[in-house]
Amino acid sequence: MNRIVTFGEVLMRLSPLGNKKMKQTNLLEYYFGGTEINVSISLANFGNKVKHISCISDDFIGETAIGYLRQYNVDTRDIYRTSRPLGMYFLEVGAVMRPSTITYNRSNSAFSGVTPDMVDWDKALAKGNWFHWTGITPGLSRGAYETLKEGLKHAKAKGFTISSDPTYRSGLWKYGVDPKDAIQDLMQYVTIFIGGVNEINEILGTEYGYENDDFIAASKALIEKYPNVEKVFDKIRIAINASWQKIKARMWNGKEFKETEAIEITHIVDRIGTGDAFAAGIIYGLLNYDDFKAMEFASAACALKHTFPGDINYATVKDVEHLLSGNTGGRVNR
Amino acid sequence: MNRIVTFGEVLMRLSPLGNKKMKQTNLLEYYFGGTEINVSISLANFGNKVKHISCISDDFIGETAIGYLRQYNVDTRDIYRTSRPLGMYFLEVGAVMRPSTITYNRSNSAFSGVTPDMVDWDKALAKGNWFHWTGITPGLSRGAYETLKEGLKHAKAKGFTISSDPTYRSGLWKYGVDPKDAIQDLMQYVTIFIGGVNEINEILGTEYGYENDDFIAASKALIEKYPNVEKVFDKIRIAINASWQKIKARMWNGKEFKETEAIEITHIVDRIGTGDAFAAGIIYGLLNYDDFKAMEFASAACALKHTFPGDINYATVKDVEHLLSGNTGGRVNR
Amino acid sequence: MNRIVTFGEVLMRLSPLGNKKMKQTNLLEYYFGGTEINVSISLANFGNKVKHISCISDDFIGETAIGYLRQYNVDTRDIYRTSRPLGMYFLEVGAVMRPSTITYNRSNSAFSGVTPDMVDWDKALAKGNWFHWTGITPGLSRGAYETLKEGLKHAKAKGFTISSDPTYRSGLWKYGVDPKDAIQDLMQYVTIFIGGVNEINEILGTEYGYENDDFIAASKALIEKYPNVEKVFDKIRIAINASWQKIKARMWNGKEFKETEAIEITHIVDRIGTGDAFAAGIIYGLLNYDDFKAMEFASAACALKHTFPGDINYATVKDVEHLLSGNTGGRVNR
Amino acid sequence: MNRIVTFGEVLMRLSPLGNKKMKQTNLLEYYFGGTEINVSISLANFGNKVKHISCISDDFIGETAIGYLRQYNVDTRDIYRTSRPLGMYFLEVGAVMRPSTITYNRSNSAFSGVTPDMVDWDKALAKGNWFHWTGITPGLSRGAYETLKEGLKHAKAKGFTISSDPTYRSGLWKYGVDPKDAIQDLMQYVTIFIGGVNEINEILGTEYGYENDDFIAASKALIEKYPNVEKVFDKIRIAINASWQKIKARMWNGKEFKETEAIEITHIVDRIGTGDAFAAGIIYGLLNYDDFKAMEFASAACALKHTFPGDINYATVKDVEHLLSGNTGGRVNR
Amino acid sequence: MNRIVTFGEVLMRLSPLGNKKMKQTNLLEYYFGGTEINVSISLANFGNKVKHISCISDDFIGETAIGYLRQYNVDTRDIYRTSRPLGMYFLEVGAVMRPSTITYNRSNSAFSGVTPDMVDWDKALAKGNWFHWTGITPGLSRGAYETLKEGLKHAKAKGFTISSDPTYRSGLWKYGVDPKDAIQDLMQYVTIFIGGVNEINEILGTEYGYENDDFIAASKALIEKYPNVEKVFDKIRIAINASWQKIKARMWNGKEFKETEAIEITHIVDRIGTGDAFAAGIIYGLLNYDDFKAMEFASAACALKHTFPGDINYATVKDVEHLLSGNTGGRVNR
Amino acid sequence: MNRIVTFGEVLMRLSPLGNKKMKQTNLLEYYFGGTEINVSISLANFGNKVKHISCISDDFIGETAIGYLRQYNVDTRDIYRTSRPLGMYFLEVGAVMRPSTITYNRSNSAFSGVTPDMVDWDKALAKGNWFHWTGITPGLSRGAYETLKEGLKHAKAKGFTISSDPTYRSGLWKYGVDPKDAIQDLMQYVTIFIGGVNEINEILGTEYGYENDDFIAASKALIEKYPNVEKVFDKIRIAINASWQKIKARMWNGKEFKETEAIEITHIVDRIGTGDAFAAGIIYGLLNYDDFKAMEFASAACALKHTFPGDINYATVKDVEHLLSGNTGGRVNR
Repeated sequence: MNRIVTFGEVLMRLSPLGNKKMKQTNLLEYYFGGTEINVSISLANFGNKVKHISCISDDFIGETAIGYLRQYNVDTRDIYRTSRPLGMYFLEVGAVMRPSTITYNRSNSAFSGVTPDMVDWDKALAKGNWFHWTGITPGLSRGAYETLKEGLKHAKAKGFTISSDPTYRSGLWKYGVDPKDAIQDLMQYVTIFIGGVNEINEILGTEYGYENDDFIAASKALIEKYPNVEKVFDKIRIAINASWQKIKARMWNGKEFKETEAIEITHIVDRIGTGDAFAAGIIYGLLNYDDFKAMEFASAACALKHTFPGDINYATVKDVEHLLSGNTGGRVNR
Repeated sequence: MNRIVTFGEVLMRLSPLGNKKMKQTNLLEYYFGGTEINVSISLANFGNKVKHISCISDDFIGETAIGYLRQYNVDTRDIYRTSRPLGMYFLEVGAVMRPSTITYNRSNSAFSGVTPDMVDWDKALAKGNWFHWTGITPGLSRGAYETLKEGLKHAKAKGFTISSDPTYRSGLWKYGVDPKDAIQDLMQYVTIFIGGVNEINEILGTEYGYENDDFIAASKALIEKYPNVEKVFDKIRIAINASWQKIKARMWNGKEFKETEAIEITHIVDRIGTGDAFAAGIIYGLLNYDDFKAMEFASAACALKHTFPGDINYATVKDVEHLLSGNTGGRVNR
Repeated sequence: MNRIVTFGEVLMRLSPLGNKKMKQTNLLEYYFGGTEINVSISLANFGNKVKHISCISDDFIGETAIGYLRQYNVDTRDIYRTSRPLGMYFLEVGAVMRPSTITYNRSNSAFSGVTPDMVDWDKALAKGNWFHWTGITPGLSRGAYETLKEGLKHAKAKGFTISSDPTYRSGLWKYGVDPKDAIQDLMQYVTIFIGGVNEINEILGTEYGYENDDFIAASKALIEKYPNVEKVFDKIRIAINASWQKIKARMWNGKEFKETEAIEITHIVDRIGTGDAFAAGIIYGLLNYDDFKAMEFASAACALKHTFPGDINYATVKDVEHLLSGNTGGRVNR
Repeated sequence: MNRIVTFGEVLMRLSPLGNKKMKQTNLLEYYFGGTEINVSISLANFGNKVKHISCISDDFIGETAIGYLRQYNVDTRDIYRTSRPLGMYFLEVGAVMRPSTITYNRSNSAFSGVTPDMVDWDKALAKGNWFHWTGITPGLSRGAYETLKEGLKHAKAKGFTISSDPTYRSGLWKYGVDPKDAIQDLMQYVTIFIGGVNEINEILGTEYGYENDDFIAASKALIEKYPNVEKVFDKIRIAINASWQKIKARMWNGKEFKETEAIEITHIVDRIGTGDAFAAGIIYGLLNYDDFKAMEFASAACALKHTFPGDINYATVKDVEHLLSGNTGGRVNR
Repeated sequence: MNRIVTFGEVLMRLSPLGNKKMKQTNLLEYYFGGTEINVSISLANFGNKVKHISCISDDFIGETAIGYLRQYNVDTRDIYRTSRPLGMYFLEVGAVMRPSTITYNRSNSAFSGVTPDMVDWDKALAKGNWFHWTGITPGLSRGAYETLKEGLKHAKAKGFTISSDPTYRSGLWKYGVDPKDAIQDLMQYVTIFIGGVNEINEILGTEYGYENDDFIAASKALIEKYPNVEKVFDKIRIAINASWQKIKARMWNGKEFKETEAIEITHIVDRIGTGDAFAAGIIYGLLNYDDFKAMEFASAACALKHTFPGDINYATVKDVEHLLSGNTGGRVNR
Repeated sequence: MNRIVTFGEVLMRLSPLGNKKMKQTNLLEYYFGGTEINVSISLANFGNKVKHISCISDDFIGETAIGYLRQYNVDTRDIYRTSRPLGMYFLEVGAVMRPSTITYNRSNSAFSGVTPDMVDWDKALAKGNWFHWTGITPGLSRGAYETLKEGLKHAKAKGFTISSDPTYRSGLWKYGVDPKDAIQDLMQYVTIFIGGVNEINEILGTEYGYENDDFIAASKALIEKYPNVEKVFDKIRIAINASWQKIKARMWNGKEFKETEAIEITHIVDRIGTGDAFAAGIIYGLLNYDDFKAMEFASAACALKHTFPGDINYATVKDVEHLLSGNTGGRVNR
């Protein structure tokens, strides 16, 4: 059985109901999120064994977060607890041409305080075979960067497949390391690259365009520099507005280029976590299908995530397959 | 004054708010529903005298259900109370390409335990002139089938018009009667058939297609076998996805075929009960208009139901007429 | 710094959540609204100094209303308190082809009881330079009409720019004055006319059509009769249904006609107060831009209002500029 | 079967949840209340046939109110509809030594506009045998006073028992009639007087004290002046604070004085409507028991009302009997 | 490490908020409960390894229930899934002298359908050392009785300590077995008896009184008949009303009688599950303390449960110790 | 007119509804609190002009906080905005013997980052005459300590009365300054000392007991060391449990000792902010009454705060006077 390990920050997400501004209400809904647990939980919902490694506050907020992960069948036994508070973010949900707005409270969080000594990577990775990380983690703090790197070394040594979604978030990277340097450093451990032209340009310092040919050229350049990278998967979002978008995907797997049909999401419920749903779809897909089917699966999974409120993709393998079989009419399932 | 009688199960419907999964919240909204009370309440909202006959739990849930029916001006005086629990269903509401999902808890319900001795049909039908039933009821239990048949006999004897929505639901019919036999048996009492090619094929064992010509042929075949059937009304749903659909209708009234313009529902609020809204529209329409206007009225009523949360169609005759007059712009009514 | 003064009724708005009918729930959300405070708060959100003058109940409802205005940085120091209750309205929110419905409880309200002696206009207008009024106020009561007129006299004498949205609401005007007479009487004080062919026809007793040429002709006729009117701004709503509409604007500024591109709002959250958002946009725009940019700004502000629940337009100048720069894709703002 | 008729205003009650101030939340719960419908619904909950006569707004608020009454099995067929709004009140619920606060919006309400021609008393009272009124009604408007008096004349003529809770509310009586005159005028129709020394002093202009002897003397004086009065029932509230009180009752039935044991309510949920619960208890009691048992029943019913949120007493006869049998321990009823 | 195994039904508990009747609201809160999982989760909250064995519906309700158990760190790997629905109960919460009311929907539940072949007891009990059962389980169905008995045989054979709370619930036992026979049959497996004079009388057919001497005599008689029983623990509830109660405990451990001081709970939040909290306290206590301290611990745990809404006792060992150290003042814990 | 200035952190308070644990719900209510704004808002509710000085996040959370203060009529014009997040705390509300629990997220907050250059004290204090500070502020960070000291210097120079509630909170003071040193340093600016034996012992390093004689001796010792201190006011809380407490107060005003009667709060709604309500009561009282009446007023204000949810004391002067006049029965205020 596949066992997938993720490492990253667990955030509390707080949001007014519907499209309200916080000024309009004193009621908030909260969930837990964070790009890596989103991947982890989606993979658990696909039936995989998953473990998440993190550093979480040693208070009732942290306990609640851990119970949340357990609810979704994520192994929490290697999570470290500290006295710093859990990171959080507030979200005001937009609509149509009004963007959603997020403000973070994470710079002093439990996870930002993680240091390599807090994780026993040998124990934590004892049973797994796949490791997933994102570009958020090394952007948070030197300790997070170093702890991640330590984990990647262990994962590589143990023969894990290592996937990465190296998203660059400009609001991070405040601790004195150049993002380009750090990501380049970590790229040596990556097998599956889940990102597009933007991310490749960021890493290589190139300026490829967005056409398919550009994507192929960029992917080749990436693999040339990092021969450990085997495949590149890119999710494409075509936004009519915040409420109506299309999702498609393309890939260069070292041998051939392919792209999927676009899936139209006419009434978006929540777009947070849709990239994570795509990443989880790629991981599940590669473990179970060929590359193209994996990409189709990921694209459909990503599309379905837009219909669930919160960060989590609740779609099961059966749900994704149902959509891939052409069932888009939304007939009630009794 | 027309007095319409319905007979069927009252279900509690429980659902998380919005598009949430139950895992995401511990708050549920409940309404009462069930295909026959949906018809009944819609007809009451159109200003008719209606009575619903059922078997309901003798506890505070049952009391609440009865108060609910009374709130909507449904006569509840012939409802029988038993110690079995009220049937219920849980609904997770989908969006776009994600279907809504329903799970039932009704197999041991108060209504499934109904037996012919629990209804005094002479008393219950004393003042009415129209009886409506659906294919759900005989699928629930032998007692429900037999009690319905007894009611139909009385209604026919009293000269009622009898309409039927003979929906076939494959999750039912667990008690040892063949659905085809039962529906064929009950067809002898039907005057107005509210169903399409699927239902006719199910009853006659035929394989008509979905084109208008097929529909006409199927309707003729049905009437040939059951000359008591006078008119056939078919609602057609064209689904772009779970959130965006079109509704149109067609009919064969023994003499001519007609169909309506499609009405587009771009932002569906709740599609549960829309078929029932159509049936109620047909009944109201036939009691007040000619066949084509009845079908137009039903189609517009059905479309409006998609804009109300819950099972109930709150549209009044004035609301339906307003839409039929071409007012689709949603101008605020002050 | 510009200081804008508004005068009008503060209403409590009560509404079930989502698209529910009141029959479906015993929970209501309330906000405060009213066309003039909507303008006022939107202008405060654009960074202006604003003051609202009104007459409000001297109970905990009135206190709550005043705190609400203060929250949004509206100067409430010249509000008069009386023993009559605050006006209110109930709103059932429609969807698609179902219109929203409003019922008022304002005919005996605190504001309807306002009389000229309750406002010290010299003090109230001491620091301002712009006065905005609407056609709702003179429709409420003789006292409201007279108090408004008194305010307009003072504003004119102090050299204020005076804008008016002379909306005619047929449900008002119950107190024995002919709406046409009253509006004609008040038109002498108007500098900026925010209204279209309907309003001009109402005032002049003309029958201009809706084409651009008609609009120009009507505007010219208006200015001919009321030479104090300098510019006419007209918001145009193209409604597909209650959930999907387009907004555009046109103007005649005494010299030239211009119109904007339509902005499409595919998933309307709340359309109450969108006209007020347009008016606030015109006022802000004229104080900061040329006429055409003012109209574009107003049109975009109006479009954004459709994405906020409640009466208030929360869009800031930055938000409106962001949309005017072509950012319609709803990219999350982190 | 007994049929009880009540006449009075239906009010919407709006309240923040828990002990919140309105400033703290924008969510309100609403119920419908009003002293006479509280009596009516409590009597329906005791299994009686009841009818309520009123004048209610002809909008969706009024429809919701009527559905509410029907839900609780109150006959609403003689309710008149007008264009004036439904009366309402806002309630901020206190605790311990903080009093609850109420502000009304009823002076221009549908019911305040009632006039004798709006009620066909012959039809309305056709089947009943008991009429209940309170001192609120004649305090609202001249029309309400006159319509009530007309009803009392008819009721007396038809041989009804007439009970009255002649509460004097100083915030009413704004329309130019002296409360003492009006109540004295209406006393000629009263058989059962549900009130205490305060009310008697108000009516007779006397100054009796609060001891039992005073109560007996006052009752005798009342009966002497109004020989139609047969019995006097007085509810006594001993308040430790807003959350903790005791209830007891005493009576003079023309022959003997009796009083009940006090019932202690250590954790009050909602005290609105507890006087109405007492009145309903007296009416039910007199129709079914001897005078003393009637008073005990009323006192226990009143105590139970303190445990239900909202205006309504949900206690059934079985619940009241259960308490009267000494079951105060709150053992879970499975 | 101790590993405790429980076996029993998982129920969904549905309840209006606060003290509302279902008629007053269409919002329900749900939790999962059931006497055995209440014990299980409380023990997990005390830091123990626990496993719950059950039979749960194979739908999204069942999935939600399992996620709920996992959230609270209960091992769910030996739970069987079937097509029957999850049992549930509705609760209207009383106050003061108004009892809470419960209505069940469990007679046809997933768990009632359990049969011995559905549990692999060898596997399920592989690692444990303590088994807890209650009198609810054998009362549900023959299959539940037989499956429990099979489990008890295995537990005994494996040397488990077996505790029982043999509560007799008269609303159960509908399937044709005499409760006395069944409980007597199962008593042979019990080591720790958590029950009082009522339960002993029920089992032995005796009529002991409630004094301490009676309790000692009854306990001795029980142990005489079932020498496998080592200790008897009895929780005593002294109810002032539904909102205010006292808890104390007594024991006969085969050698000595002891009783605790009463703990007063002046403002009960939720009393469901308080007996289960006591049982969990006894189990934890006997595994960690002497008999008297165990009973004190259980009594304090039980008292604390009254302060948590829902079925679960959230008190940790630290919380219980804190209370046992005399900290009853409720000082805020920052 | 008196103008009172406060300086301190504004915190967001997040809490599940009722007595729930966060694990039980994903809905939170939020308010803004913090000991100094609690004092400030209470004083505004008493009708005073108040200004709060702080450092608040420059995001939509900060904007919401500022709107909140404005709603309650607190002058926010001298608040500084920074990029650090607003501090916050989570509260799980206990009951009876279960304590409430708080966990903070404030160590890296906007306010902790305050430095003396962020406040223009000359401008900020231009119009005031009273300054209030608490022991929380210097415990947060060196910058907070230094900024406060700077403010105190200015206030003293301008002749302000300076009151202090020098609460010592052991969870703070992490930045390397000894709390005793800091408080001793700041004591030189204090005129009115709002604290008891605990606080005095902390400051003087003494060990006075809790009797009245001890309090007098301690107060004298404090005044001897800090002759600028004129009066000492001590609130005494006698806790039966978390839900039921008594409040009384005592004082030494340099000349005489006095104490108040205890006020019993039998059903506490929320005890957060009750100390702040006392402090605000002392300030208001000293500005309007003699010392003893001031203390009585403060004690009653503090008692009333226990009946309001949230941090704010909503009691007005009229409410406090009403209670002081002996109105403890909670009679509904219509």
